[in-house]
Amino acid sequence: MMKHFITEDFLLTDEPSRRLYHEYAEKMPVFDYHCHLNPKEIYEDRRFSDIGEIWLAGDHYKWRLMRACGVEERYITGDASYREKFERFAAILPRLIGNPLYHWSQLELKRFFGIDTLLDARTADDIWHSANAVLQSEQGSARALIRRSGVRALCTTDDPADDLRYHRLLAEDASFSVRVLPTFRPDRALQPEQADFADYARRLGETAGVSVQTMDDWKTALQKRVRYFAQAGCRASDHSFGSPDFTVWNEKDAERALKSALAGERPTDTELAAYRSAMMDFLGGLYSENGMAMQLHLGAQRNMSARLMQTVGADAGGDAIGDTIVAASVAALLDRLQKRGRLPRTVLYPLNACDNDKLIAAAGSFQDAECPGKIQLGPAWWFNDHFDGMTAQLRSLANIGVLSGFIGMLTDSRSFLSYPRHEYFRRVLCGLVGGWMARGMAPADYSVTGKMVEDICFRNAWSYFRMDA
Amino acid sequence: MMKHFITEDFLLTDEPSRRLYHEYAEKMPVFDYHCHLNPKEIYEDRRFSDIGEIWLAGDHYKWRLMRACGVEERYITGDASYREKFERFAAILPRLIGNPLYHWSQLELKRFFGIDTLLDARTADDIWHSANAVLQSEQGSARALIRRSGVRALCTTDDPADDLRYHRLLAEDASFSVRVLPTFRPDRALQPEQADFADYARRLGETAGVSVQTMDDWKTALQKRVRYFAQAGCRASDHSFGSPDFTVWNEKDAERALKSALAGERPTDTELAAYRSAMMDFLGGLYSENGMAMQLHLGAQRNMSARLMQTVGADAGGDAIGDTIVAASVAALLDRLQKRGRLPRTVLYPLNACDNDKLIAAAGSFQDAECPGKIQLGPAWWFNDHFDGMTAQLRSLANIGVLSGFIGMLTDSRSFLSYPRHEYFRRVLCGLVGGWMARGMAPADYSVTGKMVEDICFRNAWSYFRMDA
Amino acid sequence: MMKHFITEDFLLTDEPSRRLYHEYAEKMPVFDYHCHLNPKEIYEDRRFSDIGEIWLAGDHYKWRLMRACGVEERYITGDASYREKFERFAAILPRLIGNPLYHWSQLELKRFFGIDTLLDARTADDIWHSANAVLQSEQGSARALIRRSGVRALCTTDDPADDLRYHRLLAEDASFSVRVLPTFRPDRALQPEQADFADYARRLGETAGVSVQTMDDWKTALQKRVRYFAQAGCRASDHSFGSPDFTVWNEKDAERALKSALAGERPTDTELAAYRSAMMDFLGGLYSENGMAMQLHLGAQRNMSARLMQTVGADAGGDAIGDTIVAASVAALLDRLQKRGRLPRTVLYPLNACDNDKLIAAAGSFQDAECPGKIQLGPAWWFNDHFDGMTAQLRSLANIGVLSGFIGMLTDSRSFLSYPRHEYFRRVLCGLVGGWMARGMAPADYSVTGKMVEDICFRNAWSYFRMDA
Repeated sequence: MMKHFITEDFLLTDEPSRRLYHEYAEKMPVFDYHCHLNPKEIYEDRRFSDIGEIWLAGDHYKWRLMRACGVEERYITGDASYREKFERFAAILPRLIGNPLYHWSQLELKRFFGIDTLLDARTADDIWHSANAVLQSEQGSARALIRRSGVRALCTTDDPADDLRYHRLLAEDASFSVRVLPTFRPDRALQPEQADFADYARRLGETAGVSVQTMDDWKTALQKRVRYFAQAGCRASDHSFGSPDFTVWNEKDAERALKSALAGERPTDTELAAYRSAMMDFLGGLYSENGMAMQLHLGAQRNMSARLMQTVGADAGGDAIGDTIVAASVAALLDRLQKRGRLPRTVLYPLNACDNDKLIAAAGSFQDAECPGKIQLGPAWWFNDHFDGMTAQLRSLANIGVLSGFIGMLTDSRSFLSYPRHEYFRRVLCGLVGGWMARGMAPADYSVTGKMVEDICFRNAWSYFRMDA
Repeated sequence: MMKHFITEDFLLTDEPSRRLYHEYAEKMPVFDYHCHLNPKEIYEDRRFSDIGEIWLAGDHYKWRLMRACGVEERYITGDASYREKFERFAAILPRLIGNPLYHWSQLELKRFFGIDTLLDARTADDIWHSANAVLQSEQGSARALIRRSGVRALCTTDDPADDLRYHRLLAEDASFSVRVLPTFRPDRALQPEQADFADYARRLGETAGVSVQTMDDWKTALQKRVRYFAQAGCRASDHSFGSPDFTVWNEKDAERALKSALAGERPTDTELAAYRSAMMDFLGGLYSENGMAMQLHLGAQRNMSARLMQTVGADAGGDAIGDTIVAASVAALLDRLQKRGRLPRTVLYPLNACDNDKLIAAAGSFQDAECPGKIQLGPAWWFNDHFDGMTAQLRSLANIGVLSGFIGMLTDSRSFLSYPRHEYFRRVLCGLVGGWMARGMAPADYSVTGKMVEDICFRNAWSYFRMDA
Repeated sequence: MMKHFITEDFLLTDEPSRRLYHEYAEKMPVFDYHCHLNPKEIYEDRRFSDIGEIWLAGDHYKWRLMRACGVEERYITGDASYREKFERFAAILPRLIGNPLYHWSQLELKRFFGIDTLLDARTADDIWHSANAVLQSEQGSARALIRRSGVRALCTTDDPADDLRYHRLLAEDASFSVRVLPTFRPDRALQPEQADFADYARRLGETAGVSVQTMDDWKTALQKRVRYFAQAGCRASDHSFGSPDFTVWNEKDAERALKSALAGERPTDTELAAYRSAMMDFLGGLYSENGMAMQLHLGAQRNMSARLMQTVGADAGGDAIGDTIVAASVAALLDRLQKRGRLPRTVLYPLNACDNDKLIAAAGSFQDAECPGKIQLGPAWWFNDHFDGMTAQLRSLANIGVLSGFIGMLTDSRSFLSYPRHEYFRRVLCGLVGGWMARGMAPADYSVTGKMVEDICFRNAWSYFRMDA
């Protein structure tokens, strides 16, 4: 059965696609330039008790679908054992046909555990034991899972107040050759409406050796942290926004927002918008000066369900896709930075796929000769990270931008088992480009299309994030 | 010619699709859980004079396309005879290639009248006579058309002030085994801006035995009507909204809206929004308590053309697709109901297909263990009810939600001839899932995919709407 | 190599598609009803020094992609020679695989210059010489390029203040049988917020023999220009808007806007909206009375990058896709015109493809018996003018409107080499309809589908724009 499912030629339905994948894409190393792995766990080479833990302890993708299948919360995030949770997940997996989790789960079983059986209620027990045996072997540690996936470098996601201790330890550890770099993610610094902002600002200030009283102090502190990160090898920042309005520009309001927040008061909405514009303008300039790319994750609608937020917490499956991003807002941010010669390399990740074309077109208005694809769309994100979403994103890139300059895939994952998503992406990519060749829409010249595929799989991102600098 | 068009394997282009359709989907009964048939006509077993009447007396889909082909209004909704109208429609039908009406019309001719000829100006006369002969036979009555379509149950759409007389008569009529259940559709109760609202509220109050003076009276009256409907077998409510803002919450404003409307005055826009939020919160709770699902049809832009509204009236082809629905609005409604433990099973029908992914993602934030797919997207609605729209909706469900839990198709129709749309949907569904099997994207295991198809065709909806309760 | 790329059957992957293209579409003449060619250059039969000039002197599509590939501005719009610019473009062309420019460029080389080689850094020199030889022969003049493309008529885009001198000269020139008609494009008259509006209004007034002091003067002047254009053979107007709000209606504000603008002051945003609504209502009525169609290009976000605007200017590649158009806005404009019996034939061009379905549905609410498809969507515009965008637009037309009534393709181009886009469109169209036939979704009756294809390729537009009137 399984041999007719995830075969060697999974997702590759014509000869050019197969050749592009097997001769070009497959062999390329992985550069996972955006993920949420814990550097401490990598440094300590974490082990996992069982497939239940590694799959279900923190994966809100799986949690959501279990809820959607009517599984009780006790078996999702509650006090049931990992064995019980795994069994519930196994039982619903066949109902997920068509969802990327179905492919991902079977691919992970196959690539990491050598399991070629379809997981369901009947096979759960066998698979539990086989997978756990690998996890308990030396093939199953955090570092082993990374190494076995052909990863050459990865970028974690880190708070500016973090001391990057584990990144330093990893850099000094000659026994692990995979580069693990930090990413500067100052979301908390951009949210002065949060109750703990004043505490956070004080703590960040302490880390930077600055007592934060004024906007100047705050900027100085952030600037020091950006430089600290850059010295630790950081090549990129990252931001997450709902639907920010960067057309708002008022430095006084921005200062008022900071002042209120430091005093423990909530700024007004107008002040918040001004603050976000001003800070992004400042930070964007810093990124440009420090050779760091700016990643913007746009359009998530978070914590929709108060009940889920109260009972399970954030990042528990209560997030969704927000409305479309306003074109003028993104343009205002980029335009201001460009006007003063401080526009960093920028990667836009819209969560609402209706924004793909719009943001690719906007990016095209701000390109310059610093590097190919200086402003570009990141890979299909979160709710779009599936066969159709990837295909649509790649087609939009090709139609409106320059596909061959695309920096390609990342996992965005908290799990050490997510690397097959790179394989999945590469198959989709080769299927698309190979399909063009098969149908005469691209020339049958592998020296061009093969290189294009290799570049997208690895080299473009390596160069874009200055990994050889 | 025709034998190469709508064949046995219409829309089924590979072996797994054909097998899924012919071995699994085709045999399933039909549960048409949302339509606009008139229960009186079912009870009285209405007859139709001719194919012109049954096709063109009320079908604004056909009217729109006739207008778009330049047909004069006299031959659409005017005083021309049904024969003349039918001839005009026949003459333009070949120009509708690519439109679902083309497929639907030929499928209806084939399934109900055994006609295998393409309808056009030359064949119109023959088809007129053949179809009318069936309509005038015992095969052509309302009940016969329903029976011949394999319908096990259907839900009509009814005003809360309706006494459900014909539903009761049908329930008592042992000669007709198809269950005909009412749906609670209180659109008029949600539109206090309408000039006749006060009259309507008085009439609804009388039906409920309540004199409506205050919000409490009004809620009592509606509660009585919900219970009355529930006792009559009603399993679902239904609402149609343009672009409601459920983030607005102000109970005083809601009361003011009602007070003004009862006094014959138009509430302010702010009051209207508050009223709609408050009433939907109240009604949603009632639906939950009474075992009724809540259906929300969102995003229609109605009566765009004043001229058409004046000359022909509402539901005449002057409606269109509105702007996208605000994610936070839908979330606010669901969240409030969930917080107080009164979130009913909810089906969302966006009219702007750009909202599909967004609403599926939002639904996923509110699932619980009451039943699989408790909050879900309904089938592609109205302007999306075609091959591409269905396919896109099914793919979105699969990518972001759980396709196997989908409650499947409905006709949403005023016509007794619309049941082949279930067949059409099933072919599209089998084509999609079968296509995945054919391309190795789903395992070649019919025990899983066949059951999935059967569930979507019938069992999921039957269970979701508690038809065995 | 090339013979496997753009072959006879480029984009035609099944037998019905090939037959539709080669037996029906291919032979139809071209009516390019919307372009930006310069009538003076046609009249004077302009020659081009080389392929660098004709390709790169003004084509912002190419400029954008060169920038996105990291080419320096000097080699795009700067002082480098056309030879150097051409070499840079040749070097990046292989990186554009997947983008329509890749197909267009190779098609243009093949159709106009007989070049069957893939353009890249290595072949650039040969192709430079071969193409230039044709450009310097009598096959390479403006008129020759038009003639060789099978063009029967074309409509340029002209300012109302233009005296149409070259259109008159062309009409009198018996040596050139292609009809070259003006289009009334009063964008400047609709932008009283521009600093030079008062000057412009004075100049337009002078052309019309009217001293513009009041709204009545202004309307009189515009009316005279519309009539002047109509007498010169003009069959259509054209407008470009970002995101206009035609629901605003206030004649006093409209007058105030004009008064301020004539006095050199900037009207308020409210006044501007009112002005645009009032003027479009007035102009729409004029178009209707003068047998001219109204084209509305909606949703461009222009001049996003201030730096590009300053260094290169407008129309330099700094434009992008704006947010979606508000359904009620377009409906308000059409509804007002229809109510007073002055709704002209209207073609809507949304730039955000998310609007396709919405505007097709809106159009369907305003049809009448004046002609088939009186209100319709134009072909996929600008950022949507590619294989996927065209296919999506054609599918939307078919699903929601009447594909067979579609007025088909135009180039929208400033280049004399863009006519192969008609060929490209026809291949896409035949691929779609032929694909339906091949898969049994349309009847295998070429007398119907072949005529449909021919109509869309030429006859529909010819009739819609009253070319035989």
